[in-house]
Amino acid sequence: MKNVRKYAVIGTGAIGGFYGAKLQRSGIEVHFLLHRDYEYVKQHGLVIESADGNFTLPQVNAYNDVNKIPACDVVLVTLKTTDNFLLPKLLPNLVKDDGVVLVLQNGLNLEPYVADIVGDHRVMGGLCFICSNKIDNGHIHHLDYGQITLGDYAKNYRACGITERMKAIAEDLEKAEISIQLSSDLLLSRWKKLVWNIPFNGLSVVLRTTTDEIMSNFYTRNLAENLMREVVSIASVNQRYISSEFVEKMLIDTEKMKPYSPSMKLDYEAKRPLEIEAIFGNPLKVAQQGSIKAPRIEMIYQQLQFLDHFSH
Amino acid sequence: MKNVRKYAVIGTGAIGGFYGAKLQRSGIEVHFLLHRDYEYVKQHGLVIESADGNFTLPQVNAYNDVNKIPACDVVLVTLKTTDNFLLPKLLPNLVKDDGVVLVLQNGLNLEPYVADIVGDHRVMGGLCFICSNKIDNGHIHHLDYGQITLGDYAKNYRACGITERMKAIAEDLEKAEISIQLSSDLLLSRWKKLVWNIPFNGLSVVLRTTTDEIMSNFYTRNLAENLMREVVSIASVNQRYISSEFVEKMLIDTEKMKPYSPSMKLDYEAKRPLEIEAIFGNPLKVAQQGSIKAPRIEMIYQQLQFLDHFSH
Repeated sequence: MKNVRKYAVIGTGAIGGFYGAKLQRSGIEVHFLLHRDYEYVKQHGLVIESADGNFTLPQVNAYNDVNKIPACDVVLVTLKTTDNFLLPKLLPNLVKDDGVVLVLQNGLNLEPYVADIVGDHRVMGGLCFICSNKIDNGHIHHLDYGQITLGDYAKNYRACGITERMKAIAEDLEKAEISIQLSSDLLLSRWKKLVWNIPFNGLSVVLRTTTDEIMSNFYTRNLAENLMREVVSIASVNQRYISSEFVEKMLIDTEKMKPYSPSMKLDYEAKRPLEIEAIFGNPLKVAQQGSIKAPRIEMIYQQLQFLDHFSH
Repeated sequence: MKNVRKYAVIGTGAIGGFYGAKLQRSGIEVHFLLHRDYEYVKQHGLVIESADGNFTLPQVNAYNDVNKIPACDVVLVTLKTTDNFLLPKLLPNLVKDDGVVLVLQNGLNLEPYVADIVGDHRVMGGLCFICSNKIDNGHIHHLDYGQITLGDYAKNYRACGITERMKAIAEDLEKAEISIQLSSDLLLSRWKKLVWNIPFNGLSVVLRTTTDEIMSNFYTRNLAENLMREVVSIASVNQRYISSEFVEKMLIDTEKMKPYSPSMKLDYEAKRPLEIEAIFGNPLKVAQQGSIKAPRIEMIYQQLQFLDHFSH
């Protein structure tokens, strides 16, 4: 990869818009693919209302056609996973031969899907710990947090350690005032995030509630813990081992958090498609491969499929 | 028991009001215990709007004090199970020495609780297959069905066969145009009813929906079946065996039914307490006794506890 890296953002929403705008503000060349608000952003740029300080980019490189974007060194994939069926058309010409596609989405087995399109050697993953919403055309509201955990990808999620290209990209992101953690094992990091995402995304939709209510009720606190333990047990099929202490810490951290509506809850309320397959369906496939029983995750998957406005 | 039997109705609501009124209309002496609409019913009697034909009883024996009711041969218990804590005060003087308390409630292990109050020899059970609502003071709207499955009770739910007193009470009820089935094994009948009640009462509340929607969605139809199979497996702890054909028939019958809101859904919408312990908690205790895993029933129990307005 070059020393001066060109970025593309595929999906300029709450996550891609926020990180992309920060990168551009730091002096990096960024190209934004847009859909619904392409015309608006092309004319007016992006407005970032952020807990870390508001800023505006009056002019950005906005596109509604991926073929007009020059080949980039780093392609951030920040679509909803429910739009990932678009990636085989979007990615092949966009990423340079020595470039990398950085998958910044929730869920499991997203990198192998991207690797099938661009090759195993051009994929990385990232987990965003962020609370951010797109509230209007070209207008992003970042409420809290923002750290990205970066991990490199190799075939079958073999742990890669800390690679040079991870460090290079981390440097760009840190210059852009994005907090970065490096993970030597991307798959383990994905499973750890699922320990939280599976109970709280799922239950907040099914029980139409927020994290604080789930944690303050005796029964649903237990249920959240039951679900976490099922995630841990499926992770072992991938030879990724998560301790009881980690589960306990997740519960305690969530108890201390401000009342929070997970992204799936916001999607549900806005009648957007729910990311059920990436977050629930793909882990359940791993459970099945390993003949592990995960009846509670299966049940919440079934309940979400029922509630999803787009699954009928 | 005498040849001419005196009845009491404890809980003059959708079920007790309907059956009690039919009994009185047939010429039987019936005494109604009321609470909220005592004054109204004492003055105006009962109005039954029914799929089988409307009728009015301008005058009924209405009470708000159980001690004023004469001792009866048959005491119908038609309270919500969430009010069963009242029974130790209501029952002892109300039922004659050779009389019987007929428990017409949904759920499990209600008869043993009543037997602790009045003795094992003065208890019977009944399962109501009925769609009926109380829509106003002294005003009951019976929409459909109405059959009662009667079963006699003996200590630890030992199967009793068809007893003489069952036949006698069935005769009264049939004269009152109530359709009756006799069960030789009350506990088996209760488990069979739970095969339906557990999935459909539970899912209709959690997923805010009706039976037809549950059945027409691929995922929740499977979930309903999963829940039914867990009920069957718990029933085996009680040495009650329910066939796969029965489960299959329940599913098909439900598919054919008109869209239906189970009683727990109506309770939830009206912000009344949910009968969680009788229908879900007591079966789960049996599962625990028999070391049977029922993770889905446990999960729906936890979800219902969260949603119940009265459990916090």
